[in-house]
Amino acid sequence: MEPGRFKQVTIVGTGLLGGSAGLALKAWDPDVHVAGLGRRQSSLDTALEVGAIDSGHLELADAARDADLVLLATPVGSFEALLAQLKGRIKDSAIVTDVGSTKAKVVAQAERILGHSGRFVGSHPMAGSEQKGPAYARGDLFEGATCILTPTSRSSAEVVDAVEGFWRALGMRTVRMAPEAHDRATARVSHLPHALASLLMSLPEEPDLAVAATGFRDATRLAGGDPEMWRDIFLTNGPAVVEALDDFARRLSTLRELIDAGDADRIQAFLGEARTRREETIAQRLSERRVAFE
Amino acid sequence: MEPGRFKQVTIVGTGLLGGSAGLALKAWDPDVHVAGLGRRQSSLDTALEVGAIDSGHLELADAARDADLVLLATPVGSFEALLAQLKGRIKDSAIVTDVGSTKAKVVAQAERILGHSGRFVGSHPMAGSEQKGPAYARGDLFEGATCILTPTSRSSAEVVDAVEGFWRALGMRTVRMAPEAHDRATARVSHLPHALASLLMSLPEEPDLAVAATGFRDATRLAGGDPEMWRDIFLTNGPAVVEALDDFARRLSTLRELIDAGDADRIQAFLGEARTRREETIAQRLSERRVAFE
Repeated sequence: MEPGRFKQVTIVGTGLLGGSAGLALKAWDPDVHVAGLGRRQSSLDTALEVGAIDSGHLELADAARDADLVLLATPVGSFEALLAQLKGRIKDSAIVTDVGSTKAKVVAQAERILGHSGRFVGSHPMAGSEQKGPAYARGDLFEGATCILTPTSRSSAEVVDAVEGFWRALGMRTVRMAPEAHDRATARVSHLPHALASLLMSLPEEPDLAVAATGFRDATRLAGGDPEMWRDIFLTNGPAVVEALDDFARRLSTLRELIDAGDADRIQAFLGEARTRREETIAQRLSERRVAFE
Repeated sequence: MEPGRFKQVTIVGTGLLGGSAGLALKAWDPDVHVAGLGRRQSSLDTALEVGAIDSGHLELADAARDADLVLLATPVGSFEALLAQLKGRIKDSAIVTDVGSTKAKVVAQAERILGHSGRFVGSHPMAGSEQKGPAYARGDLFEGATCILTPTSRSSAEVVDAVEGFWRALGMRTVRMAPEAHDRATARVSHLPHALASLLMSLPEEPDLAVAATGFRDATRLAGGDPEMWRDIFLTNGPAVVEALDDFARRLSTLRELIDAGDADRIQAFLGEARTRREETIAQRLSERRVAFE
């Protein structure tokens, strides 16, 4: 994508993700006008101060009227109401995308509400941090991380290319997947690990924690995530998360039987396979490039 | 403990843990004689070169004859045979301890084999690293980490104090627990997390891993551990690990039902409690002091 492709980009929600997108966008194309929509003036002021947006708005209609691209960067649970407000208040040529962590429900909502114009494409930029708010926005937050695009048969090819170009301009590598495949994959590699970390944190009794070391700290790190955000993820990706939990429970039950039976060979084989698989896949890929959080 | 308390310390197994103990011990008391027992001369040569031991031996009887303290620093699965060899080949006054990650079985073995003289006390120094072998030995490996001592009603109070003094001399803080309480606690905060990490690594299909980011990498980090060592841990701590797995499975099933039912309030409450508990316990304690691995 060339600078100038979008004259105005409207970012709905100028928190960490929205603010960082604004900063990265301005760095890439200083001439683009970034309009930010916020719920509080103080948050908009911070976003203006750090240079993440050029204009701050409290009304969606004001912020989105002239947008060539609208980026929804608020929690997934708020999208339905926002999309209903956008309908009829944006230009016919405007493209809409989002940063939601779950996709099938969001994409179906957007296609239903905005109509079948094909001008919505779902995005999941896999970047973030434990910090919240525009004060923590960073122009390099997306640099080198992966963004998953989830076009459907209804998506216009030109729109998909434009949204892909947008994330690449922000420094991301992009992958395309069907919304359902995205949700199934993230249930397994993101939502399930989060659920396990929270469950693990609930288990030890107080004296047990005296024995906890870095292994436990790292294994429960994800449990430090925002409860509201993760509630929405579990709710909007319910069926895929339940499927992943069931699959996990079956495997756990198998390992439990091996340990109960003292089956040394099969326990070692299981542990060896897990280690090899990790070394050959995730350990390699994720040490080679900077990968953002979540 | 004062330097000079032990004239000779014999370390059985001069790998990372044994070698690091030797280095730390020599730094604290340059006059102590550290004898190392190894299976290969090359490994003993490395331990001699880095200064972790003063003499290297391939025969247990040679290494242990004059020991005031014997430290078993080989995998837990080897202890039974080693203890049988030690019996009758060490001084009556010699104290024996170990570095094993599970304790009830080890302590019972040692008390049975060495007799009821009370001169064995189990230790679990919670320090380590992903590296193996004496070349990676570090004099500060134990510094600031926790060592759990597991005396029983048969242990001599003087011996427990001496073993505690030994680990403190190496820079560790010490905690005393019954062997069974130790095993139940470590099953929950160490062995269960390891099992979960390995299970988690087995679940995603190949395309799913394209979506994996640092959350998944960290959640599966423990699956990179040595399969043989962890097989032995699961086998020697079987009942406590099975109990922890069962408890975890029950909680997982409860969460699954909440997600399946779309129970927003209770999902958020569960996630919030886990986060709060982590913040108030493990996150605080483990950021305040340097904690070694596993």
